Formats: sequence, C-alpha cells, structure tokens
Amino acid sequence: MDNKRLIYARQPRGRLTSDTFDLEVCPIPAMGPGQILCRTVLLSIDPAARAWMQARTYRDQLVEGALMPGHGLAEVVASSGPIPAGAIVTGPVGWQEYAVLDPEQVQTVQVRSALSHYLGVLGITGLTAYFGLLSVGQPQRGETVLVSAAAGATGTVVGQLARIAGCRVVGIAGGAAKTAVLVDELGFDTAIDYRSATFDEDLAAACPDGVDVYFDNVGGPILARALAQMAVGGRIVCCGVVSQYDTNRPDAGPRGVPGLLTTKRLRMQGFIVHDYAEEWPAARAVLEDHVAAGRLRVIEDVIEGLEHAPQALIGLLDGDNVGKRIVRVGADPAAALPT
Amino acid sequence: MDNKRLIYARQPRGRLTSDTFDLEVCPIPAMGPGQILCRTVLLSIDPAARAWMQARTYRDQLVEGALMPGHGLAEVVASSGPIPAGAIVTGPVGWQEYAVLDPEQVQTVQVRSALSHYLGVLGITGLTAYFGLLSVGQPQRGETVLVSAAAGATGTVVGQLARIAGCRVVGIAGGAAKTAVLVDELGFDTAIDYRSATFDEDLAAACPDGVDVYFDNVGGPILARALAQMAVGGRIVCCGVVSQYDTNRPDAGPRGVPGLLTTKRLRMQGFIVHDYAEEWPAARAVLEDHVAAGRLRVIEDVIEGLEHAPQALIGLLDGDNVGKRIVRVGADPAAALPT
Repeated sequence: MDNKRLIYARQPRGRLTSDTFDLEVCPIPAMGPGQILCRTVLLSIDPAARAWMQARTYRDQLVEGALMPGHGLAEVVASSGPIPAGAIVTGPVGWQEYAVLDPEQVQTVQVRSALSHYLGVLGITGLTAYFGLLSVGQPQRGETVLVSAAAGATGTVVGQLARIAGCRVVGIAGGAAKTAVLVDELGFDTAIDYRSATFDEDLAAACPDGVDVYFDNVGGPILARALAQMAVGGRIVCCGVVSQYDTNRPDAGPRGVPGLLTTKRLRMQGFIVHDYAEEWPAARAVLEDHVAAGRLRVIEDVIEGLEHAPQALIGLLDGDNVGKRIVRVGADPAAALPT
Repeated sequence: MDNKRLIYARQPRGRLTSDTFDLEVCPIPAMGPGQILCRTVLLSIDPAARAWMQARTYRDQLVEGALMPGHGLAEVVASSGPIPAGAIVTGPVGWQEYAVLDPEQVQTVQVRSALSHYLGVLGITGLTAYFGLLSVGQPQRGETVLVSAAAGATGTVVGQLARIAGCRVVGIAGGAAKTAVLVDELGFDTAIDYRSATFDEDLAAACPDGVDVYFDNVGGPILARALAQMAVGGRIVCCGVVSQYDTNRPDAGPRGVPGLLTTKRLRMQGFIVHDYAEEWPAARAVLEDHVAAGRLRVIEDVIEGLEHAPQALIGLLDGDNVGKRIVRVGADPAAALPT
C-alpha cells in the first residue's frame, strides 16, 4: 500500500511558493511495538507552519528533506497498542496519507460533533481562542475587545467568545466581504477593514473608550496602531504574528514598546495553548455547549486533496480564507458519524 | 521675600541642554484659603522629566513658559489649613525655593531616617523599585533577575530587593566603576558593562539559564538583547525608557515583539507607582526595616544649589550618577532630625 506525502524540500526565500514542497509516493512505514497506523482524514492548515520554516520558535526549525509536519485528524487503521483500530484521533500526522505514531502522541476523540470541528472550534484553534482570550486577556463584561485576523480560524472564535462574555467586540479583517461576515453572521459589534485608507480613523472611531483587550494574531503595523488605541490598564494577548511569517526580513518591533506599556500600564503577554493542556477537556466541553446551543457559529473552509495543501497554506498566508482552513486527505470513516 | 525658580522655557531639540531653562526671581505667591507655603529643601531629579518634554505620557506634556515641575521634600513654613507649620512634606513643589500647594497635594513625612531617603529609597524611587519588582515582576527564590540602569536610583534598590528575595541578581550599567559598585557594595551576583564590545556575550554568560525577570529602565537596544535572553515564562517589568527620552527621534521598538513573547510565553507589563498608592505605607515600612537592618544600602548623589538643577538632569540623562540624584535647594529644618 502506498503513502502519498509532501516533503519540506527547500526553505522559502521571501514569500512562500509551491517550490518549497515535493510530493512523493513511498511505502507505508512499518509499525513498531505499541505503535498505531493512522489514516489521515483531515489536515489543519495553520499560519504557524510558515513560522517554523523561518527560525526556531516553540519548536525546532524545519529541516529540509523531511516530511512537512502538521496537525490532523485520523482514523486508526491498525494498532499494536491500547488505542483500538477504528478509533478517531488527532495528532501530528504530518502532510501525508498514513502516519505511524506512538499512542502518547495522539488524543482520542469522542465524536459528538462534525469531525472537522475537532481541528477547528473544538481543536487547537478553538482552545487557543479560549485560553488566549479568557485566561490571558481576562475580559470583563462591558469592556471593548479588539481582535485582528478576525475572520480567520482563531479570530472568529475569539470574537464570538468575547461577545458571549458580554464585551463589545471589534474585528479587524481584510476587505468588505470579511467584515460583513463578522457583523452579519458572527455578531461582532463592528468590523473594520485594515486595507482601507481610513483604517486609523476607523479604528479610533470604533473604539471611542479605547481597547481593553487586544487579541493580536498579526503583529506588525496593526499591533502598532492597536497599541496607540489601548485604554489604561489594557491587555494585549500575543497569539501570533502572521504579518511577519511570510518573509525573510521581519519588521522591527512596534514603536511605543516599551514606552506605551509604561504610560498606559499595559500588559502584553504571549502564550502557547499546550501550556493549558490539563484544562483542555473542561474548555472543550464549554465550547461544545456553545456550538450545540448555536451561540458559537462555525465557519470552515475545506479544500479537497492532500496535493492542494501547499496552495492552501500559501493562500492562508495571503488571507484567502474565512474561518478554519482544512484540507481533506481521505474519506470520513463510516463509524465516525456523530451519535 | 523672593522666590528663585526655574522655568521650562524652550522645548529641547535633540539632546537636553541648559538653554531649555530660564532662572528667574519673583515674589512668593500668596496663599489661598486652606493652602500651605512650602520651603523646598531637596529636589528629586528624575529621568522621566525629560520624557515629559517629549510628549504626553502619564501626565500632560510640559508647556513652555511654566515652572519646571518636579517632586521634592519641603518644610511647611506657613499654613492656613490642617497641616501645621514645621511639618515635613513631599510633593510637587517644582524647581523653586517656595511653593504654595493644597494640602491634598502633599504627603506628610514622619521622619525616622535621613531626610533625603524620603525622596530616594523611602520615596517614589524606592516604592517604584518595590512594586515593579515584587508586584509586577513576581520573582521567585532562585530565579535570575536582570536589571538595567542598575547603578541608578531605582536599579540600586531593585537589585538589592531581588537579592533579599533570594534571587540571582545581574546588573547592567555603563563602565567599570559602576559595575564594581554593584558587585562590591550592593551584593549583586554579577554586573556587566553595556558599553563593552563583548556585551552580548557577557550577558549570555551571566545568565546561563536565561532571565526570569528583567526590570527594564532603559528600553531600546538593551531591551532587545534582554528579550533574546529571556527564559520561557519570563516577565519584563517596563519601568522606564531612559534610552529614548533625550531625543526627538525615538527608535523603533525591539525586534522580537511580539514574536518572542509568544514563543517564550513572556509577560511584558508596565506600571506607574501611583497605581499602588494604597499600599505605599506598608511597603515603606518594609523598606525602612531593610535600611535600618543594613540589608539595603543607600547610595545618593546630592548636588548643591537650585541653579544646578538643569545640569543635574542633563548629567543624569548622560549616566553621570550613581544612586539617587538629588538637588539641595535649602537647609535642613532643625526640627527634622531623626528621632
């Protein structure tokens, strides 16, 4: 049986192109004792993958010639360990059809919702929004919450959780189609287009009392503008820096750091969702309830076929997507329908 | 009776010079109902005064032609309110011999230590060190604490409080004379010279396990270096930005913001000591105990004569001082000797 996979072949120079990747077909590797063979169903496409190419982050920099890593949802098709064949798991399957993993590398999914939700709203993305907003940002009822990349996978969840927490929610996104989705479909109080010539004025007008919590997915010039708009005692949640990933020459940091942090008594704090792993089950239960009750709408952007994963990531970095971008690698297992 | 005073006459262009100030002699203003007439004894010289000239900070930007503001220690020489003549107070006396103030603008000092201590280690400076390090930085026993401008008024107290808290203390200062004082007189574990050609390597060698708390008084390139040296979960206390005050063209922010904050899960937080005003008495009592017990050594740098206040500030921005810089404006009141 063959395994189709994508190799991280060449470090990108400047913006990411499909030349970075090579598609290859090779045999499925043999399982060692206690291991599981996973058939990839869905692959999560995340902007952080571009950052891994750039330098060491919270993980080692990618090495040319190795499998492109990535998080996905898979069906266990063979097992010599405690997780039975037929189980649905999430884990670091990589950009390939079949992965051999150790049981402790994966999480077993109790399927209660659409499978894709376990990569998005109920997966790393939703948990990132949950802990970043609530544990790091600590928004209070009535405060103004600003979120960038608001139409993206994390941003759509952050904004809705802020609304559920009783905050005034302002989203930043690129283009009128996206800002309309935020207000009309997701209940943001207002949304502004960072590509507009009047962005600075629009931001100030949207946040007349300043910003209490800024959930930053982008860094760069938008972070600099948000800093200028922060209210005294505000908090900036540093979740990602998507404006600086797809380049060999990251910008200097925003002017006003650290000066504005002092004069406005701001707290700027980074986090990694894995630091909260012990609290994931409780958070996932809350998110499931919100989804089931219709308070939290899920927007997904599914692209068919492993061979389109490079273009899916390139487009994501360009801001093509609305909501969670996923690549479908294989068919849903029949046993995985919600019960 | 005449009042000698210094006027903030002209906004500096580039670095601060004595042209910024005009010395003038005018009558002492009349007291209104309930007010107090204060004779300035000591004036605190603080780098923030240069920032007030640059832009709005936590207070309005300075206006040309008005009295140069500043915090000082004074004797009440006449009173039509609740604070009696003879009392010793601290407050916004400004750069002048006599000030008319409202009682609620000042704090009455119960003199238990040298008068100058109430502007330094027991005043705003010491309280800034105390709340910045302990409430914002939250150092734990055994952690590495790094402090910049370590030989300055705040830095000398921060480093000693970190030592008292059981931390490993690394100071950054300019020149061998200052670094020697830090290690030999104040008990820092090590001190490094930011003017040295090997500063980057020296910093890395001084903090082999990374920096858990960086108390930042300077911003700019030293902050950028410290960011690179932070340990996972580290905290950066944003107290001041002295590297960026004495200029019309502040640098861009440090590279690595916000990227490193995310990958290392850093918290970067600004504060103003006045936010902790309710806790000042308790903190001052702790500082008094440390000083009385000899655990906290006080280094002061007193310059004689109000007319030298401009040069005192210019020199402070150049890093001339070791410890708290104070200008003596008038003689100590006889009644103010410690009891």
